[in-house]
Amino acid sequence: MKTLRLAVLGFGNAGRAYARLLLEKDQELRQQYGMAVQVTAIVTGRHGTWEEAAGIDLHRALADFTANSSRTGLEVARDADYDALVELTPLNIATGQPAIDHIRTALRRGKHVISANKGPIAWAYRELKALAEEQKVGFYHETTVMDGAPVFDLVERTLPLARVTEVSGILNTTTNYILEELAAGKDYDAILAEGRRLGFVEADPAMDVEGYDAAAKLTALLNVLMDADLTPDRVERQGIQNITAADIRDAAARGKVIKLLCRGWREGGVLHATVAPAQVDRGSLYATIDSTSSLVSITTDLMGKLSLVEHAPLIEQTGYGILVDTVRLLQRLTGICP
Amino acid sequence: MKTLRLAVLGFGNAGRAYARLLLEKDQELRQQYGMAVQVTAIVTGRHGTWEEAAGIDLHRALADFTANSSRTGLEVARDADYDALVELTPLNIATGQPAIDHIRTALRRGKHVISANKGPIAWAYRELKALAEEQKVGFYHETTVMDGAPVFDLVERTLPLARVTEVSGILNTTTNYILEELAAGKDYDAILAEGRRLGFVEADPAMDVEGYDAAAKLTALLNVLMDADLTPDRVERQGIQNITAADIRDAAARGKVIKLLCRGWREGGVLHATVAPAQVDRGSLYATIDSTSSLVSITTDLMGKLSLVEHAPLIEQTGYGILVDTVRLLQRLTGICP
Repeated sequence: MKTLRLAVLGFGNAGRAYARLLLEKDQELRQQYGMAVQVTAIVTGRHGTWEEAAGIDLHRALADFTANSSRTGLEVARDADYDALVELTPLNIATGQPAIDHIRTALRRGKHVISANKGPIAWAYRELKALAEEQKVGFYHETTVMDGAPVFDLVERTLPLARVTEVSGILNTTTNYILEELAAGKDYDAILAEGRRLGFVEADPAMDVEGYDAAAKLTALLNVLMDADLTPDRVERQGIQNITAADIRDAAARGKVIKLLCRGWREGGVLHATVAPAQVDRGSLYATIDSTSSLVSITTDLMGKLSLVEHAPLIEQTGYGILVDTVRLLQRLTGICP
Repeated sequence: MKTLRLAVLGFGNAGRAYARLLLEKDQELRQQYGMAVQVTAIVTGRHGTWEEAAGIDLHRALADFTANSSRTGLEVARDADYDALVELTPLNIATGQPAIDHIRTALRRGKHVISANKGPIAWAYRELKALAEEQKVGFYHETTVMDGAPVFDLVERTLPLARVTEVSGILNTTTNYILEELAAGKDYDAILAEGRRLGFVEADPAMDVEGYDAAAKLTALLNVLMDADLTPDRVERQGIQNITAADIRDAAARGKVIKLLCRGWREGGVLHATVAPAQVDRGSLYATIDSTSSLVSITTDLMGKLSLVEHAPLIEQTGYGILVDTVRLLQRLTGICP
């Protein structure tokens, strides 16, 4: 049986959820596509690298990770033997690195790429996409915005011939959580402490609070869906750092809720991209997006406006999104389409 | 250039919107799929039938329909020369006829079928699907629920390997409109009169008001997405005919809104399907679905819960959905996939 050999860079929660799904769906993938998926390299952040030309036993990798190599992610991308690179390393949102270098290296070698890392899509999409096309390889990135929810696939696979004219949404769960807790009357520092405990807030929440994460996601959406050539630093961006409990109470008194909204649209040939807190009606779709849920609304010339809501995802949904990208690659390799 | 020859049964608003899109996207389809789409027969309800082996000029059909045949829809399905039947005839929701006969006839001849008619999907999906598979032809029906919004494609094309465990939604716009107007304090008869004028309410609104249309849509969803073998008469169904303005006021006083909800799920191997008015929280996603908008929420084992909202569609969106089904057929015929 033909195999698809993967080099996986990053083996945190999402990578482990993906590995569990590869095990669970192994037989089904073989049956549907006549190919076996093998992981021939896993590079972790702190537990070293495991390489195995015959395929790593993922049960063992999950239970008892055994490094046998000291190669870095870049070295594996550059020198290891694999068919597709799965890029799951931690994100430097201000540069997109080292993920961009990993992906560029793989694409230049004619390897397919699956990225769960939004940095490369926000900072270098056009270059990487062109490189993938030139090399005639696949480049998939469904989980870079809204976890495994099919945001990119919704447009690419279900809305053929339609042109996206506007994208909007609520894409950052940390700010969503903070605004909700402020509205519930809690103190800002207490919210951050509790949010860190629950895993909703990073040790340094600045990237979320200042709207930078949302801007990166909006940029990824616009680069892919509207053929923009945008970078996150060019998004007109305002975070929630200046929103006070009093602002939220004032808004509530007028039937409004404050949400961090993302919006991108073209007007007279010019692309606009904004991230900013907005007062939305309490009865609006935006207001219903609570805590870890998120929303993307997509307007097209042919299908009007559609909204996709992802309700309270778990890390398993990110693993699933990476699996879907793997399925898309198998479809490409085999010509077997749904 | 190879052609895909269509026999179109029904040429009302949706059929005409579809014809306009076929004209508009003709070049793009030829470029992408290397095939030309031709309409070789159009059967109208009151203006006769037009057949043209070399392809009907759709500009002329739209501007000045010229019947040249007296064949009925069934006769065209049975005897005419075409590759795919496009079934857009008016629905008899209590039987699914004559659409089922049209489709069965076409499939038995080994013709592909596109249906915008939910009757066949609600009443005879399993039989027709099996027949299409046996004949190795395509059977597409995206517009039967939520116009052109990609409800079926969302699952089939963007959620591979996932199993649908629950479907819910607000699928009938007439009842949505009536409940809203009742909430606004209007009189029931005045609402119906105004609704008829605006095109939101049928001459005989019973099928909508009594929940039958919603039950047919729910049945279509469950038959396709959950492999149910359901018919609309077996849905546990309650309409809005007994909902009074006082009920709505009482609900509002408790922060609730009344909506006609559809829900289908499996429990212990048994499929449940219900349509009934429900009191939903004013701040819930359900409550935001106003007037002509609609909602489907889909829960799967691998991707959790996703919701798709279609905002205030026009008839053009139904035409687009039929075009998307045509694109899917072209993809099947050419092996060219996104």
